[in-house]
Amino acid sequence: MKRWWLEMSKGFLLVLSGPSGVGKGTVCEALLKKRKDLVLSISATTRYKRLGEIDGESYFFYTEEDFGRMVENGEFLEHATVHEHKYGTPKKFVMDNVKKGEVVILEIDVQGAMQVKKEFDEAVFVMLLPPNMMELRNRIENRQTESEADINLRMKNALKELDFVTDYDYFVVNETVDKAVSDIDAIIEAEKHRVKRFKYVKEKVLGGKYV
Amino acid sequence: MKRWWLEMSKGFLLVLSGPSGVGKGTVCEALLKKRKDLVLSISATTRYKRLGEIDGESYFFYTEEDFGRMVENGEFLEHATVHEHKYGTPKKFVMDNVKKGEVVILEIDVQGAMQVKKEFDEAVFVMLLPPNMMELRNRIENRQTESEADINLRMKNALKELDFVTDYDYFVVNETVDKAVSDIDAIIEAEKHRVKRFKYVKEKVLGGKYV
Repeated sequence: MKRWWLEMSKGFLLVLSGPSGVGKGTVCEALLKKRKDLVLSISATTRYKRLGEIDGESYFFYTEEDFGRMVENGEFLEHATVHEHKYGTPKKFVMDNVKKGEVVILEIDVQGAMQVKKEFDEAVFVMLLPPNMMELRNRIENRQTESEADINLRMKNALKELDFVTDYDYFVVNETVDKAVSDIDAIIEAEKHRVKRFKYVKEKVLGGKYV
Repeated sequence: MKRWWLEMSKGFLLVLSGPSGVGKGTVCEALLKKRKDLVLSISATTRYKRLGEIDGESYFFYTEEDFGRMVENGEFLEHATVHEHKYGTPKKFVMDNVKKGEVVILEIDVQGAMQVKKEFDEAVFVMLLPPNMMELRNRIENRQTESEADINLRMKNALKELDFVTDYDYFVVNETVDKAVSDIDAIIEAEKHRVKRFKYVKEKVLGGKYV
């Protein structure tokens, strides 16, 4: 039997974001481990390549000049400057994979996600939330990498970022990594069944044989 | 830890429909067996109560007069006449359960689903599809309950019903009951994480303690 419904999906971009410290990286890693069919979006950067990093795998490495030209040509879904280095999400990599029917995952902060939404509102936006703010603070404190002032700044930013939850399609509470991953997994499965992502459903059921 | 995200969902109505013979009843039954938390919408009818049927469980049994009054008062999400008897989906039962946070399942034909959509477009519409039309014909034939003329009529209706797939949010192909049930299960899980179904997400994360 021809399984047209498995072949004709357009694929989509799933943007996963949330406040700093909520555990985006850990959840994203566990998700990619669970679902081998997902494609992780690769960022572009102007920073120097570190030992062991591979161009086109860890990052796409660009010169300031090339990066600037790409910004001008609108070749990024979003871009930002962090500590004097530029980072961005190349549109082509995402779009090529989406067209091939792949589900592309982009892990990014709220500001970046809102830029992506302007460029590509067909993406699926998922905000990862902490169960509550005390828990978020605990998690940041437990990393033991930030000063008290840094922690306070992160908490202040988290408060602002929460305002954007209404711009997202879904929210997932990261109480445990396993549950968060299985919630996102269900969202991906459901989105694969969206009528709006398919063309010619009727024609496929008819199979050209019954009209 | 207070699990606000489990308590504050508004619930929703999931309308499951599809062409006659696709296996709506079987899939719906298996789904209710798998997920004990779902509430099945109970229909109202003017037909006589059969032996063993319980009012408010099998159906809500109404007189022609009462049913007519409810139609006039707009108390049905949809209603239709089948073999001189009237059938309808009482709005109150669905809405009361949705407000309580329950996921209500309504198994109904495409015509009924389109009526529900006009009344309550916040519902989630899922169309169950056959893998192809020959398979649908085989399934109807295998029931051995319909004449050749009846089968042809059902196939003709199925063709028309497929035109409405674009009015649905999701489609699920019923190749096997198990896979169809797990697909609908994922859709329910995903819809429970929709931001639009929640109010005050930010306030809940803040827990009133951090503002």
